[in-house]
Amino acid sequence: MSPYSAPTAPRPPLRVALAGIGVVGGGVVRLLETNRELIARRAGRPIEIVAVSARDRHKDRGVDLSRYRWEDDMDAIVAADDVDVVVEMIGGADGPALTLARHALGAGKALVTANKAMIAHHGLDLARLAEQKDTPLKYEAAVAGGIPVIKAIREGASANEIARVYGILNGTCNYILTQMERNGASFADALAAAQAEGYAEADPSFDVDGIDAAHKLAILAALCFGTRLDIGAVTADGIRGLIAADIREAEALGHRVRLIGMAERDGTDKGGGLYQHVQPCLVPADHPLAYVPGALNAVVAEGNFVGRLFFEGAGAGAGPTASAIVADIIDIARDEYGPAFAMPVDVLDAAPAADAGARVGKHYVRLIVEDRIGVLAEIAAAMRDAGVSIESLIQRGSEDGNGVVIVLVTHEGPARAIHAALDMLGASDHVVGAPMHMPILAL
Amino acid sequence: MSPYSAPTAPRPPLRVALAGIGVVGGGVVRLLETNRELIARRAGRPIEIVAVSARDRHKDRGVDLSRYRWEDDMDAIVAADDVDVVVEMIGGADGPALTLARHALGAGKALVTANKAMIAHHGLDLARLAEQKDTPLKYEAAVAGGIPVIKAIREGASANEIARVYGILNGTCNYILTQMERNGASFADALAAAQAEGYAEADPSFDVDGIDAAHKLAILAALCFGTRLDIGAVTADGIRGLIAADIREAEALGHRVRLIGMAERDGTDKGGGLYQHVQPCLVPADHPLAYVPGALNAVVAEGNFVGRLFFEGAGAGAGPTASAIVADIIDIARDEYGPAFAMPVDVLDAAPAADAGARVGKHYVRLIVEDRIGVLAEIAAAMRDAGVSIESLIQRGSEDGNGVVIVLVTHEGPARAIHAALDMLGASDHVVGAPMHMPILAL
Repeated sequence: MSPYSAPTAPRPPLRVALAGIGVVGGGVVRLLETNRELIARRAGRPIEIVAVSARDRHKDRGVDLSRYRWEDDMDAIVAADDVDVVVEMIGGADGPALTLARHALGAGKALVTANKAMIAHHGLDLARLAEQKDTPLKYEAAVAGGIPVIKAIREGASANEIARVYGILNGTCNYILTQMERNGASFADALAAAQAEGYAEADPSFDVDGIDAAHKLAILAALCFGTRLDIGAVTADGIRGLIAADIREAEALGHRVRLIGMAERDGTDKGGGLYQHVQPCLVPADHPLAYVPGALNAVVAEGNFVGRLFFEGAGAGAGPTASAIVADIIDIARDEYGPAFAMPVDVLDAAPAADAGARVGKHYVRLIVEDRIGVLAEIAAAMRDAGVSIESLIQRGSEDGNGVVIVLVTHEGPARAIHAALDMLGASDHVVGAPMHMPILAL
Repeated sequence: MSPYSAPTAPRPPLRVALAGIGVVGGGVVRLLETNRELIARRAGRPIEIVAVSARDRHKDRGVDLSRYRWEDDMDAIVAADDVDVVVEMIGGADGPALTLARHALGAGKALVTANKAMIAHHGLDLARLAEQKDTPLKYEAAVAGGIPVIKAIREGASANEIARVYGILNGTCNYILTQMERNGASFADALAAAQAEGYAEADPSFDVDGIDAAHKLAILAALCFGTRLDIGAVTADGIRGLIAADIREAEALGHRVRLIGMAERDGTDKGGGLYQHVQPCLVPADHPLAYVPGALNAVVAEGNFVGRLFFEGAGAGAGPTASAIVADIIDIARDEYGPAFAMPVDVLDAAPAADAGARVGKHYVRLIVEDRIGVLAEIAAAMRDAGVSIESLIQRGSEDGNGVVIVLVTHEGPARAIHAALDMLGASDHVVGAPMHMPILAL
């Protein structure tokens, strides 16, 4: 098939089945209906919904599904002769989503998914299955919502060796951090605001503990470094430990606090270990990530020829997610697609995990201590004994009688030394609660 | 050809000829050599330079070209049986670049170009020729250097009706504006600094008068709106008219001055007129374009489902431009490409030019006037007579005896009214030099 489909020789419609019609599924239906004509022009052929399937046929979804064939049984859309593409929007790493994905690819159908958990956990197996069946597997919506960052890295930056990839991968956390920044709110109050606004779930663990960001980071890392996706190697610290003083002190230091997922490969040779970690960081005020507000997402990729690329947009929501899903469908309609992870699974490297403790950088450390003689000496001694060199230290008088806040910024040093110092101090009777530490993002 | 090229069935190398080896050409050679192995993995096949051609064989380019076949005659690389892709890096809208492009496509070879002027002026003709010969024409490097914005819009945002596309498309101007911002420098001093740093040419007209940005805007508009590229319909005001006070006053108003190329389609139906204009604008401090520093480029696309997408990166330079050129070559190696403007040329709309004077918005107006009685009354009368409603006005005492600076911000109103008022005032004996006016970018 030539990529140039002259309008005089129209190609047949691409026939799509949607599985799982929640908020995102409704967005996909609305998008394909609203932009129908424009999409047909761009794709070179119409894109038609031929079947939908979800748990409850009678739920009000705000879109009229009556014109589409309803299938109670997901396997029916896999078996249907008139379905070219299955769009999986069920969610969850395993269960019905994974079953559907395997069956669809196994039947030689194209699979489009927004399911970051499933791709993070089973992406390699699914990609291998897609290869065997010579059918596309696409997942643009799984990372950073509407931002076409999978495409930007897989194709746009494909000429570059990527030194590191990092960004704001969870809109809920960024919304909470922005609230804390603007209002001086506590984490609990900012979380409650996010829940009230619909930016956070009733059980926010998946977002605020960094798990969602970890899924996305694992996917980005595999694409950037040509490595075998390994969600088990990604570690995550969430934002629950942050207090209002952290945001304030960061600001006083010319920084903003952001939950950053970062992946970096040690050395430039293929044998280097891979660091993949999600944690709150201090971002310098002259870095574009410092200006990413509210529930937006943003990704930075640093290439050895292109330099720093920065992408920002909506990381979630019906419209942005639908935009990414339909972009994948259009790629399939155009026959512009290739291996899911940019190269066949067997060509991907198995990268060992990097020694995270050996990573060198400056750190922000915050302790709450009892207001008594000798505590500062204890902190200084712990830092000295762990080999941590202190660049600056600020002690603020207690505001509420709940202890004194001590903030220090270290000179460059290995993370291991910070951990050792904080282990010592965490065990001290004079330190209240868990110490907080955040790396300071180097430009 | 299946997109899944298993390593057990290696595809033949993609053979590339480079035409025009200047700074960018040297970058492409270095990139293809430095990242050779990685590119072969990602592309599914090696990418090999088989021939180079430029005016002067003996010029020192900082790269060793001796290992590649040299062709004095550009047509020899077109005629060569062992060339799959011709990379045009000669520059210029017409002349040898255009001749080479036509010959290469005419011979059925793939063409990759970084030449914004040529694409802006002859892109449609070249795209039609590529269609006839069923061969790729790619130009990622022509817009915003290393930022994969052609791909992001052509493919990443392809599901969306784009409401408007705009951005910082010229790094030289942005460097100059950033200098003025930081140092309070005059335009002339900032230009001299940009020239000293290599960011501006000895004759800077192409950059500072907005012509380069206009080329890029015309290309973006065609892609975003599915319209026939029409460089003749793009108008441009450069940054020569800006004085240090403009930057200062904009800052006082909570804004930054940026040279913005903007394209917007009237109404949402296909019949709407197309506005395409390059001019300095006031960008609100909470818009990401306000934070784009130095010689970087940035592009914003607003889609009806995805919302606002923002892309930032290096807009020029050997490395970033080479990154975009080689990304195009990798797409070709992967067989992941399609029509140059996302759809066949015959499917593109011929959009009439929008009525720029009817565009409604707030404006910044700056006048330098003689320090005498009645001048303010004259300004107020001109605004009233033209139907311009004033939101705020500031008069600053003369600093240097060269007149008084008056800055006003209008309420929302049509651009036509501003132009009429400034025509009146420009003719006044009491107004010194040309008035400056800039739209205030609406979020």
